[in-house]
Amino acid sequence: MEFPEEVTSIAEDIKTMKIRGAGRIAKAAARALMIAAERFQGGSVDEFVNYMRATGELLISTRPTAVSLPNAVNYVLRVLEERRYTSVEEVRKAVIEAARSFIEYSEQALKKIGEIGARLIKTGDRILTHCNSKAVESILITAWRQGKRFEVYATETRPRYQGHITSMDLAMEGIPVTLIPDAAVLQVMESKRITKVIVGADTVTANGAVINKIGTSQIALAARLFRIPFIVATETYKFSPYTVVGQPVEIEERPAEEVLPAHIPGVKVRNPAFDATPPDYIDMIVTERGIIPPKSAALMLWELFHRKPSESRLPGVEEDSG
Amino acid sequence: MEFPEEVTSIAEDIKTMKIRGAGRIAKAAARALMIAAERFQGGSVDEFVNYMRATGELLISTRPTAVSLPNAVNYVLRVLEERRYTSVEEVRKAVIEAARSFIEYSEQALKKIGEIGARLIKTGDRILTHCNSKAVESILITAWRQGKRFEVYATETRPRYQGHITSMDLAMEGIPVTLIPDAAVLQVMESKRITKVIVGADTVTANGAVINKIGTSQIALAARLFRIPFIVATETYKFSPYTVVGQPVEIEERPAEEVLPAHIPGVKVRNPAFDATPPDYIDMIVTERGIIPPKSAALMLWELFHRKPSESRLPGVEEDSG
Amino acid sequence: MEFPEEVTSIAEDIKTMKIRGAGRIAKAAARALMIAAERFQGGSVDEFVNYMRATGELLISTRPTAVSLPNAVNYVLRVLEERRYTSVEEVRKAVIEAARSFIEYSEQALKKIGEIGARLIKTGDRILTHCNSKAVESILITAWRQGKRFEVYATETRPRYQGHITSMDLAMEGIPVTLIPDAAVLQVMESKRITKVIVGADTVTANGAVINKIGTSQIALAARLFRIPFIVATETYKFSPYTVVGQPVEIEERPAEEVLPAHIPGVKVRNPAFDATPPDYIDMIVTERGIIPPKSAALMLWELFHRKPSESRLPGVEEDSG
Amino acid sequence: MEFPEEVTSIAEDIKTMKIRGAGRIAKAAARALMIAAERFQGGSVDEFVNYMRATGELLISTRPTAVSLPNAVNYVLRVLEERRYTSVEEVRKAVIEAARSFIEYSEQALKKIGEIGARLIKTGDRILTHCNSKAVESILITAWRQGKRFEVYATETRPRYQGHITSMDLAMEGIPVTLIPDAAVLQVMESKRITKVIVGADTVTANGAVINKIGTSQIALAARLFRIPFIVATETYKFSPYTVVGQPVEIEERPAEEVLPAHIPGVKVRNPAFDATPPDYIDMIVTERGIIPPKSAALMLWELFHRKPSESRLPGVEEDSG
Amino acid sequence: MEFPEEVTSIAEDIKTMKIRGAGRIAKAAARALMIAAERFQGGSVDEFVNYMRATGELLISTRPTAVSLPNAVNYVLRVLEERRYTSVEEVRKAVIEAARSFIEYSEQALKKIGEIGARLIKTGDRILTHCNSKAVESILITAWRQGKRFEVYATETRPRYQGHITSMDLAMEGIPVTLIPDAAVLQVMESKRITKVIVGADTVTANGAVINKIGTSQIALAARLFRIPFIVATETYKFSPYTVVGQPVEIEERPAEEVLPAHIPGVKVRNPAFDATPPDYIDMIVTERGIIPPKSAALMLWELFHRKPSESRLPGVEEDSG
Amino acid sequence: MEFPEEVTSIAEDIKTMKIRGAGRIAKAAARALMIAAERFQGGSVDEFVNYMRATGELLISTRPTAVSLPNAVNYVLRVLEERRYTSVEEVRKAVIEAARSFIEYSEQALKKIGEIGARLIKTGDRILTHCNSKAVESILITAWRQGKRFEVYATETRPRYQGHITSMDLAMEGIPVTLIPDAAVLQVMESKRITKVIVGADTVTANGAVINKIGTSQIALAARLFRIPFIVATETYKFSPYTVVGQPVEIEERPAEEVLPAHIPGVKVRNPAFDATPPDYIDMIVTERGIIPPKSAALMLWELFHRKPSESRLPGVEEDSG
Repeated sequence: MEFPEEVTSIAEDIKTMKIRGAGRIAKAAARALMIAAERFQGGSVDEFVNYMRATGELLISTRPTAVSLPNAVNYVLRVLEERRYTSVEEVRKAVIEAARSFIEYSEQALKKIGEIGARLIKTGDRILTHCNSKAVESILITAWRQGKRFEVYATETRPRYQGHITSMDLAMEGIPVTLIPDAAVLQVMESKRITKVIVGADTVTANGAVINKIGTSQIALAARLFRIPFIVATETYKFSPYTVVGQPVEIEERPAEEVLPAHIPGVKVRNPAFDATPPDYIDMIVTERGIIPPKSAALMLWELFHRKPSESRLPGVEEDSG
Repeated sequence: MEFPEEVTSIAEDIKTMKIRGAGRIAKAAARALMIAAERFQGGSVDEFVNYMRATGELLISTRPTAVSLPNAVNYVLRVLEERRYTSVEEVRKAVIEAARSFIEYSEQALKKIGEIGARLIKTGDRILTHCNSKAVESILITAWRQGKRFEVYATETRPRYQGHITSMDLAMEGIPVTLIPDAAVLQVMESKRITKVIVGADTVTANGAVINKIGTSQIALAARLFRIPFIVATETYKFSPYTVVGQPVEIEERPAEEVLPAHIPGVKVRNPAFDATPPDYIDMIVTERGIIPPKSAALMLWELFHRKPSESRLPGVEEDSG
Repeated sequence: MEFPEEVTSIAEDIKTMKIRGAGRIAKAAARALMIAAERFQGGSVDEFVNYMRATGELLISTRPTAVSLPNAVNYVLRVLEERRYTSVEEVRKAVIEAARSFIEYSEQALKKIGEIGARLIKTGDRILTHCNSKAVESILITAWRQGKRFEVYATETRPRYQGHITSMDLAMEGIPVTLIPDAAVLQVMESKRITKVIVGADTVTANGAVINKIGTSQIALAARLFRIPFIVATETYKFSPYTVVGQPVEIEERPAEEVLPAHIPGVKVRNPAFDATPPDYIDMIVTERGIIPPKSAALMLWELFHRKPSESRLPGVEEDSG
Repeated sequence: MEFPEEVTSIAEDIKTMKIRGAGRIAKAAARALMIAAERFQGGSVDEFVNYMRATGELLISTRPTAVSLPNAVNYVLRVLEERRYTSVEEVRKAVIEAARSFIEYSEQALKKIGEIGARLIKTGDRILTHCNSKAVESILITAWRQGKRFEVYATETRPRYQGHITSMDLAMEGIPVTLIPDAAVLQVMESKRITKVIVGADTVTANGAVINKIGTSQIALAARLFRIPFIVATETYKFSPYTVVGQPVEIEERPAEEVLPAHIPGVKVRNPAFDATPPDYIDMIVTERGIIPPKSAALMLWELFHRKPSESRLPGVEEDSG
Repeated sequence: MEFPEEVTSIAEDIKTMKIRGAGRIAKAAARALMIAAERFQGGSVDEFVNYMRATGELLISTRPTAVSLPNAVNYVLRVLEERRYTSVEEVRKAVIEAARSFIEYSEQALKKIGEIGARLIKTGDRILTHCNSKAVESILITAWRQGKRFEVYATETRPRYQGHITSMDLAMEGIPVTLIPDAAVLQVMESKRITKVIVGADTVTANGAVINKIGTSQIALAARLFRIPFIVATETYKFSPYTVVGQPVEIEERPAEEVLPAHIPGVKVRNPAFDATPPDYIDMIVTERGIIPPKSAALMLWELFHRKPSESRLPGVEEDSG
Repeated sequence: MEFPEEVTSIAEDIKTMKIRGAGRIAKAAARALMIAAERFQGGSVDEFVNYMRATGELLISTRPTAVSLPNAVNYVLRVLEERRYTSVEEVRKAVIEAARSFIEYSEQALKKIGEIGARLIKTGDRILTHCNSKAVESILITAWRQGKRFEVYATETRPRYQGHITSMDLAMEGIPVTLIPDAAVLQVMESKRITKVIVGADTVTANGAVINKIGTSQIALAARLFRIPFIVATETYKFSPYTVVGQPVEIEERPAEEVLPAHIPGVKVRNPAFDATPPDYIDMIVTERGIIPPKSAALMLWELFHRKPSESRLPGVEEDSG
């Protein structure tokens, strides 16, 4: 099937990680579907439906591990099933509307998370964060603008130093921010008496585990040691319905060069992009639909998917044959 | 706005803590709304609605930290939104009916909790309780009247010695009860081989934490040490929908004189009224709607509020500006 | 009341444990109801209804502790309440249909659990299991037939050696299986670097505890020590609605002779059939309706019973009078 | 045997708890031995030795549970065995000298503990203490006089309110001190971000457990929850050689009236004076001979008793016959 | 070298496990050395010394994993190095004397452990034990004869059912004893409210781990869950000086037939004889030299071997070459 | 006082960290003392003694936090006190001899640690290490040369990447080594099923804590999560006698530029060089004098310093005045 160049180009950018981050990927996919719908010419309603589904499959196939991608695609394309359409224009309009609604929703979600999460922040807090999360930034900046005064400790987040981005974003708002090596987390937690940890999420699984940037799980473990509240901030479209039916979340392995630019003979490199934090180390998940304990992830998934989760289609997800 | 004297008097009694205890406060508020509705004279349906809402705000403002208060008010005043009323009489009747229904519900709830909780008690049990909770007393007395034979250990519950009330209430039923200092909990748990801990709740939060009388959390911690089941008994109107959207539960600070009647020069006093027990230390919450694990508090809240919790109005709750 | 001989014979076989295992019992009960409905002669709709209810009570009374039994009976007999029937034939057909549907459902459930659970298995896994569970076998055999290659360690499961059955069933499929004494679990977990534990369930309670063959809880504890994922596989009809209202799950005591065939003078024997694994040691429960964390058992129960669980009838369950 | 009145009077004061506190009891016993030696008239060396041993037994018998008492007596009377004496004067002088040396040692020990412990205190610390311990006061006052600035939280220590004494003693030095109810420990630890807990000891056992005022163990447990360093300060003469050979430390039960001055009909009272804190919750023990981890208590005992501890005589300690 | 037949026969019996149990092996080895010394004929002092050393090597080589064996041999043969001997008779006498002294010591040790350990037992205790240990029996029987009244729960200890021996030994004394399957430990601990666990040891390592019969470590873990004191009773000659210098303790694998008398096709068996309980789960070790916390095992080893442990010879222990 | 240029130059190099690492610093100090002794001209024995003590103070003052430095100086200069010397030559010879002996000892110690530690390694191990430790390398290389075959995972150890040195050193021996980011420790531990963690030490304190390169404590915590043995390898001259008397170990703060070469406006940096791992997370410490559990650090210190540790002089260590 032929796809408009803008669509294949977005698909390509997701594949090559020019477009990165669960949120940005989801929005790009929605935009691609909108463009595909707009560009479609001629044909019957059935042809349009098939074409849109093929576009969806194309997009989902680019990054099989980011759940925000199929969630966005499924959200938009759900309209294909909902009604009986009598003309291409009618169904095209429905798709475009759904795509627009997803994009708007995802922006509103960030704002809402900021509002809810900001209520958890108190003047005097010393907050540790890891990597770079727009949801976390939304919370911190919202709280700061409300006049609350606190400090932030940001891990540098090797190997790609996303902590530098977080530090700059927060410093620009005037929030006092201190950068620390990833290895210093536990020592800083204790000596600086950190009061909260807030991180984002890449995926939330049915049993409440949170997949996020490598290093998150050991920060959660250290926070638990001192009983420091560990808070995850995430949009609900990162909850994975596939995990309800046992689909494991694969941890992506990134290039050795990120860690070791110049090869050392005889020395291999492992560079996993994510890790899984078990639900017992997470005190709460702040979503745009309210705060839930991680062990209620199943509740959120049942609510989100308006049906028995085991009936979810699994587009673009192939079985691991061992 | 003018309010009937009986209403302002109830509001005053809640404010000055003549009326204390989450359950009693809730019932008093419902009663105040009933009286306000009865006393209202003349005016249009709109005036009545505004007047009732103002009464609600007045009541809620007396104790911003007790969630049973807005829950009771919101329960009663929900009828204002539900239908289009054509006369003051009609809406007045609806409000009075709702208030009566809340009061009845809360009494039935205690009874139901007693029945459900009593099934957990066995002859031979040695049960520890803290402070004074009507829900806990309902369970113990129900079980005793069913012929089960057990012992109770009650903490004295400094600084106000509510453990004396619990002891007397149970002793009056013939239940063997032993009073112990708050500091003796862990030692007694081990040496007397306590088999269960049952306490009440002031507030239950969205992530399953239980706010209750100061000392509860360290009892829960000690119970966990020996893996003694730790059970919370509470009516569902103590579940806080505000925590779903991040509203922190403020811990009230009580007067120094409760702890130290005669001032010692140079010596300050802290007298927090409550503490928060994290959900990991709670085995189950017995409510009138059944037993749930604390991590399903979110489920209960979603169920109770018949809508996305993040849309709950937050009457009388102001933002903490840091 | 008179019951057909085939029905009383099934009831007798359940009582004397000729029919054993939560799943087999449930299916036998459904079959008995089907037979009872078929055999019923003459009479009015009301007589039929009373007769079917009596048959249900008879069946439930045979094994008061296996929740799959009342769950199966209630599932089938729910049709008696759902509609107004105009003839015995009509209601008979409805009952037979419901019984058939339960039996089919329970067979489909095993298959579905196999599919979902198999996604959790990876080539290279070293999986420990305990006792003999059809749900666990379904998962392992499904995964093996998908081409995944792994090893299984099966405990012998004293005193009745059900581990021998598991070992033979898996060996017949060609799955490499190693039998170990129950006392060797922790040592084998560490030295053989077990990667997963999967067991079945007899009953799942409202607060997420799993009642299963004696020994399960100490295996779960050992798995937690090394943070080895501990997975329970079970059909949802083993979730107990009675525990929602506080009904404790009684642990059956089996005959001393199972443990000690020849009496030793002065030596007593305890032989409890089951134990309870607390939800904190269970990572997930695989059901035919998807994977849930154990702390979402309440959610599953609310969903399954389509109403406030506290209103569940408790047929055949008597109060423990202490 | 006849004893001087001053000696029997000291024995009586220890028995009736006019003289209380492990340190004060030990010093009083040494003083009593000194007086007994001085008062002895006529007789042979053997008579003197027998008389002194009888005095020792008398003293030890007054409070069988306070290990500082036999430790002091044994320390002083050890000189009776060490040499062959040729005159009563010679042995009398040796005993008086040993008693004086014990008293001096115990005073020096407090000072030394103050010096060592003060090095652990930092400006900015928020220290929680329980009951009243001279060793703890020595540390805090030494550190304060060195110019370190910190805050102290003192539990009131029901039922006898020894926390009031601690508060006054520290306030007199100008140290900021805040009194809290015993039940508020965990809440204050978290909300006030306590940085250290320091308590005294009544007895230290061979396996490193610390017996101290009731409430200590639950404070230690709470400190462990937040990984707050938990420090015990004690003179080495509170280490019990009897525990090396299995002698259990009996927990004294105090009168009900301390807890409940006016009897409530049907209500019993338990009032244990001490509890045991297991070594896993203690970070270090500060003694006058240096800091040791509690699990090295056995090392300290071997060092202190200059011989295989299992050969220690156990004067005045009778077997628990079950 | 030629050895007397009685000596080679003892060596053979140790090798083929006719002589089993760390204590019995040690005594048999001492006896063999005594016999060897008695049987030696003619030759010089040097020849005698070489001959005795060869006998020692022979004995040690029979069971490389039981530390009591080289400990016994080294204890006896240490006399060869201590003095310069002038005649065979003189050195022969020294060896025979040392062997006799070891045997006597080991008998006295059991008695002493009984006395010390019995002080830990209280009337009303419910004690769980595992496998069959003479040291544990000595404690229980001593306490019982002192008039203390308690109950014992003995695990059956698959695969060789040594729990039957323990049960009979105790029942013969009139001690109430209940046999339980190994899988029932955790359930019985909770439901029967076990108050103490006491087990023996095969080997104690330098860092305080205890090697004992398979199953011990999971019992210790379960005891820790409920904070039930876990006590090890053992003679000090089971402390391994080899572990001080890093020698790992090898876990012996026993024949499959013990577990599964009749082979099942395709089913393998693992039958490890021992496991290692980490020191954190052991509250104390009762030895004939007094009670120590397991983390003081190093102290005991330094004391026992009168020199830097790293200089211990390692007779008969070969390096694991990977 | 004047010091030879070679001595001041070594002092300078230690101060400016040209000479780094606890072992190298200790040896350099011994060498400096040797040179100082050799260079000393004319004068009396007393002058020589004063001059050597001044040299010692000079060296110790360069790095007040590295305990190996005063330990080395004290070891060498202890000879000044031991005998009465009659000539400068005699005492000079004694000092030179002691310095030489310290250097030799420290080299032998590394070799001995290698031998002892290698016994802990097994073919098939997957070992994780952190930073660069000569003691750890000695163990790994010794084991490899004995023919044992294993893999090593080395953290990169931000900010100075000492993991690159470790990787290269091991790769040169042919040991398979994989470099990982510091944030990937927990994920790699689980996914690669690490079997052991081995790290070095900078300082060991009296209560068994280990001060080592930043990041060590969170690795230890993660290892504990999965119960992976955590082993510290260190020479005994890193045990700190000062901690016995309460001297805290100060954590050095390193320059921001190591973490963030180019300043980001508004962003601060924390760069602590070390952290403290509590003894509960350490399974054993491998020293040249044998393996000890960390809680026996006090035992080692008492043994090492041949006297009551509280009498240790504290040269060059000033009191923290708060």
